[in-house]
Amino acid sequence: MSEMTRPGLRAADALRAVRITRHYTIHAEGSVLVEFGNTKVLCTASVEEKVPSHKRGSGEGWVTAEYGMLPRATHTRSDREAAKGKQSGRTQEIQRLIGRSMRAVFDLQALGERTISLDCDVIQADGGTRTASITGAYVAAHDAVSKLMAQGKLAVSPIRDQVAAISVGILRGTPLLDLEYVEDAACDTDMNVVMTGAGHFVEVQGTAEGAAFTRSEMNALLALAEKGIGELVALQRQALGL
Amino acid sequence: MSEMTRPGLRAADALRAVRITRHYTIHAEGSVLVEFGNTKVLCTASVEEKVPSHKRGSGEGWVTAEYGMLPRATHTRSDREAAKGKQSGRTQEIQRLIGRSMRAVFDLQALGERTISLDCDVIQADGGTRTASITGAYVAAHDAVSKLMAQGKLAVSPIRDQVAAISVGILRGTPLLDLEYVEDAACDTDMNVVMTGAGHFVEVQGTAEGAAFTRSEMNALLALAEKGIGELVALQRQALGL
Amino acid sequence: MSEMTRPGLRAADALRAVRITRHYTIHAEGSVLVEFGNTKVLCTASVEEKVPSHKRGSGEGWVTAEYGMLPRATHTRSDREAAKGKQSGRTQEIQRLIGRSMRAVFDLQALGERTISLDCDVIQADGGTRTASITGAYVAAHDAVSKLMAQGKLAVSPIRDQVAAISVGILRGTPLLDLEYVEDAACDTDMNVVMTGAGHFVEVQGTAEGAAFTRSEMNALLALAEKGIGELVALQRQALGL
Amino acid sequence: MSEMTRPGLRAADALRAVRITRHYTIHAEGSVLVEFGNTKVLCTASVEEKVPSHKRGSGEGWVTAEYGMLPRATHTRSDREAAKGKQSGRTQEIQRLIGRSMRAVFDLQALGERTISLDCDVIQADGGTRTASITGAYVAAHDAVSKLMAQGKLAVSPIRDQVAAISVGILRGTPLLDLEYVEDAACDTDMNVVMTGAGHFVEVQGTAEGAAFTRSEMNALLALAEKGIGELVALQRQALGL
Amino acid sequence: MSEMTRPGLRAADALRAVRITRHYTIHAEGSVLVEFGNTKVLCTASVEEKVPSHKRGSGEGWVTAEYGMLPRATHTRSDREAAKGKQSGRTQEIQRLIGRSMRAVFDLQALGERTISLDCDVIQADGGTRTASITGAYVAAHDAVSKLMAQGKLAVSPIRDQVAAISVGILRGTPLLDLEYVEDAACDTDMNVVMTGAGHFVEVQGTAEGAAFTRSEMNALLALAEKGIGELVALQRQALGL
Amino acid sequence: MSEMTRPGLRAADALRAVRITRHYTIHAEGSVLVEFGNTKVLCTASVEEKVPSHKRGSGEGWVTAEYGMLPRATHTRSDREAAKGKQSGRTQEIQRLIGRSMRAVFDLQALGERTISLDCDVIQADGGTRTASITGAYVAAHDAVSKLMAQGKLAVSPIRDQVAAISVGILRGTPLLDLEYVEDAACDTDMNVVMTGAGHFVEVQGTAEGAAFTRSEMNALLALAEKGIGELVALQRQALGL
Repeated sequence: MSEMTRPGLRAADALRAVRITRHYTIHAEGSVLVEFGNTKVLCTASVEEKVPSHKRGSGEGWVTAEYGMLPRATHTRSDREAAKGKQSGRTQEIQRLIGRSMRAVFDLQALGERTISLDCDVIQADGGTRTASITGAYVAAHDAVSKLMAQGKLAVSPIRDQVAAISVGILRGTPLLDLEYVEDAACDTDMNVVMTGAGHFVEVQGTAEGAAFTRSEMNALLALAEKGIGELVALQRQALGL
Repeated sequence: MSEMTRPGLRAADALRAVRITRHYTIHAEGSVLVEFGNTKVLCTASVEEKVPSHKRGSGEGWVTAEYGMLPRATHTRSDREAAKGKQSGRTQEIQRLIGRSMRAVFDLQALGERTISLDCDVIQADGGTRTASITGAYVAAHDAVSKLMAQGKLAVSPIRDQVAAISVGILRGTPLLDLEYVEDAACDTDMNVVMTGAGHFVEVQGTAEGAAFTRSEMNALLALAEKGIGELVALQRQALGL
Repeated sequence: MSEMTRPGLRAADALRAVRITRHYTIHAEGSVLVEFGNTKVLCTASVEEKVPSHKRGSGEGWVTAEYGMLPRATHTRSDREAAKGKQSGRTQEIQRLIGRSMRAVFDLQALGERTISLDCDVIQADGGTRTASITGAYVAAHDAVSKLMAQGKLAVSPIRDQVAAISVGILRGTPLLDLEYVEDAACDTDMNVVMTGAGHFVEVQGTAEGAAFTRSEMNALLALAEKGIGELVALQRQALGL
Repeated sequence: MSEMTRPGLRAADALRAVRITRHYTIHAEGSVLVEFGNTKVLCTASVEEKVPSHKRGSGEGWVTAEYGMLPRATHTRSDREAAKGKQSGRTQEIQRLIGRSMRAVFDLQALGERTISLDCDVIQADGGTRTASITGAYVAAHDAVSKLMAQGKLAVSPIRDQVAAISVGILRGTPLLDLEYVEDAACDTDMNVVMTGAGHFVEVQGTAEGAAFTRSEMNALLALAEKGIGELVALQRQALGL
Repeated sequence: MSEMTRPGLRAADALRAVRITRHYTIHAEGSVLVEFGNTKVLCTASVEEKVPSHKRGSGEGWVTAEYGMLPRATHTRSDREAAKGKQSGRTQEIQRLIGRSMRAVFDLQALGERTISLDCDVIQADGGTRTASITGAYVAAHDAVSKLMAQGKLAVSPIRDQVAAISVGILRGTPLLDLEYVEDAACDTDMNVVMTGAGHFVEVQGTAEGAAFTRSEMNALLALAEKGIGELVALQRQALGL
Repeated sequence: MSEMTRPGLRAADALRAVRITRHYTIHAEGSVLVEFGNTKVLCTASVEEKVPSHKRGSGEGWVTAEYGMLPRATHTRSDREAAKGKQSGRTQEIQRLIGRSMRAVFDLQALGERTISLDCDVIQADGGTRTASITGAYVAAHDAVSKLMAQGKLAVSPIRDQVAAISVGILRGTPLLDLEYVEDAACDTDMNVVMTGAGHFVEVQGTAEGAAFTRSEMNALLALAEKGIGELVALQRQALGL
């Protein structure tokens, strides 16, 4: 391990300050502003009493996600995807990841033939927007489900477990938890990990952006991720008053 | 005047509570959250040292705007324009209106060959998103210009006057200032007015959604708009500490 | 008032020569070539016995419009929108304006569950294409309705009033009626006004392209528009033999 | 030959009334309304002093074509291609055919590095729109070239020969010249033939829409086409005063 | 005839080596690799128990085709159409041609309300990809029909005749059969001919790419095509064991 | 381990029959057909002496990939992406993965300002198309580099190591190597692993499609992947004659 210094003197295995603000906007069934340091994502959960065609008549519901970034969420302005007329490959990858992560903890049969759409819109970006999105979307989805139960539309919750996500990476030989932008841009290996409240893996996506990584580096990263997600899961429970 | 009651017992000629929060996000040269009651729009101003092709080599700069609405800014979720692959006619109309309004108070020659892009993204909608956008975008543009001046890139400001906007309408015979959503949906005539700090008209867009309107109704609406914009212009100055 | 001279020594408050030719093409239920001087627009009205999804089962009909410009209707060739794969913001604004203007005089309940589509295609452009389109589309829609009545499909006309439109503007201090292209390109303020036969306003869209305009300038422009539209409404009646 | 009767008692080997009206609109370098009976196509030729990238720096010019049909040129309204966001395969086939036909008689070296764009827009359709387009586009291109010569931009004409086109087909065993819509829809074989003034073939596109056709039927069709194109070429010369 | 030498000393009226390999892939109802010399096209026939909307409820089936070229099927890499977001005009022309050619020999009534889709994907290109596609697609369609008959879904075959295609052209005065790429690029006239097993014409598409061609040249080309297609039809029968 | 039986009695830790056929087509600088059992992917490497804009003037080259699937490579026909006008999120994810994997072993500085494009087109699919693509693309890229060296355009190879990929998964509790389609569709966890010849990780993408997976399951999967990639790397060397 090197004596590398992180911004704000953060420890290598420490999360940034995480804030989860529920009821951030008024119209959505669930609306959460999640902050991982300077990364701020608005996650809304919308309930619609219909399902996409591949679920119609199945008795099952659907949970899906869309992701967007405001043009000036980043250091330099990026083109607006609506103006360009298409979503980038990166955007599609991220929204597919969020959707799969949510479905991993949902019992679609218990949800009934309705759809919960999670919209994750990045207001301000500083690394980790996809992991913040997953962590916040879970809380928004939980609020939407609570509303359905309060309305008597659901008797039991279709949510089987919590789900949260964090990034880990190796920067100049040091494994780091929860990369902010300058670290992400400089690191050799970047891994996004999604886990359940029970501590099992939902998604692991590791990429060597510089040198390929060894099995022991992978083990170190997974251990860091387990620690970080354990903390996030506790913060979710606290935000939900559970 | 009828005895019609507005939500919150607001007077017919009163604005909703208006709040202008500068430096709302950290990356943009200007970043303003503008609130007209429950309508909340994030307006960022981005400076780029290049101009579109129709201005290249002209010695003049460009000021332009884009507008978007988060899918769940509204009562029911609307489709994400980036996912649909195109911006609606409504979106294009609004962003063209914002851009023209900004250019009406900018000296493009004095700006020099650079572009200021105003991104107006609706976080929460309750009527009047385009007028809030114009009112907030002016403040964001002012901050971006101040930054250029502080950096020594501009010696004199290219901004010649303030610009702000408000909606007015006729609901069951009563002219109303600053329509919120339920009023906008029910009114017969809807007019958006953009004016300068000097009290001159930049844009007037009136539409009879129910019965056509008379000349005297038009006069009443314009008078209401003049009153409202006078107040907005004062609020902009106050927010900017001028 | 200045002593400014208009092309063809036209008076400041005079329309260009207006011609309305019905039955210009053979297939459409209404087909009108409308000419405002050198501006020539073919307006066709097509009746279809179906409605868009938001009207299905409502018992109401729909009236809508599309607008296009032939690539060489203008001084220099413009790109074909079909080849570019999208309609410009300007095109969408104009066709939305035409559609709203037509619906302002239609009783959609009385129309029954059918659609009238107005296609306004500019054969030759010299300023005022949108106002010519509205003025001609009304006549084409009237012919289509007459055909429906002659066929016994409608017992009473769903058209409640006439509708026509004109542009007005301020060029070097002088308010002018019915701007042709060279005037439109040079003027400070440009306003399009849509009014009913009864003399009430349907749409007012004024834009300061140069200096912002005052309330008294606005009054002068509205008065000019009222005069012009009064003449257009008479010409429509004459063309229809009413 | 059968005793089949054509609309208007036209002979099997007769063209419909053909009219070629030059200078139909005022802005284009060449502007021709061509009528084959009820089929009416506006053909404009636009000269631009630039070439597409594959000709840049080659010393050669380019001649190209675009084709469109107004939505209500036909019996029932067809969708506007600009609104659908793409040109149909049929549209692309036709405009590629028109472009190749024009280039067959153009010396691109003699044209110099400039582009002539032929826009063929169908105002009213009754069969044979592509053959009318080619026949009219030639005249529009000729006018555009004459203008370039009158301006001293070209010393010798880059046009080497005339070009015109006609449809032929077999309807219930009878070979027919210049099919109108009802004949085209009913015929077994449909062939479009493009020929030069010298009587040579530029394009032959024959399609069996019902039963496949024999070699002797093909010979009969080609003979009819030669007769028709001979007449069209004479009409072009007459229109151009040659 | 000149003493021109073809690659591989092929005679002017000789086909390249033609190979037809059935069952080339395992999933499709018909799967044929067709080779005309170095041109290799994979033709698959897919049966779906549904029809497009214009055939729904008609009791008739549909036969259609799509065409594609792998990016590096050619000498230099061409852009992937899926990445560009649209099919070129050339691609659309070819797939429309293949579809019409197949339908010319299909009794859609006898096929019943199902669709056969022919996908023709060029693995390697050396001229004649569209004629190889038609020739191979026929065999793939035949295999798909045999499967439907073996499954008892069809009692009698809806295929009325064979269909095959070949290119012919004139290169420096010599009519040639089955052009390979270097010949196609250099020739003055290029003609694609589609014929039935009975020797009748389905499609004739001749284009003068250099000088226009005479009637006698056309006759020579058609004679060559008849010879070549006669051989292809025999090869199809042999491949199918008929 | 359970007593689960794999198709063909394959052992849980056995690859399918892998075949790597070089020089499969004639035009590309590298052309490889790679087969993992019934999965067949054509991988071509194309060299172009230009770079995308973000590399222009950098002295560095670029390596990129595109992925496609023929419509009937699968059990049921899927829509052609070129016809739909866009690539799916899945396609984009896969081609981004292939591109990153190739760049992980390329020294872009040593490549010089040129681009190698890897096109991976699935001829027949039976699971593992992305891992077969990466394994085959490496061999195609190696052939393209060898050609550049033989032509004297490169003095030393920019390829620093081999790269190959395999899928692993857990099916009813048993970790399996190299999933074929029926296994992939039924498994709980699916992981794609990309490694270098030196045995280090380039990408790890694990997804719980059913129950979330534990750390020990992850370890078992990674061990299986290491074994499989070791064998693939040896097969690549053998195919290349190294």
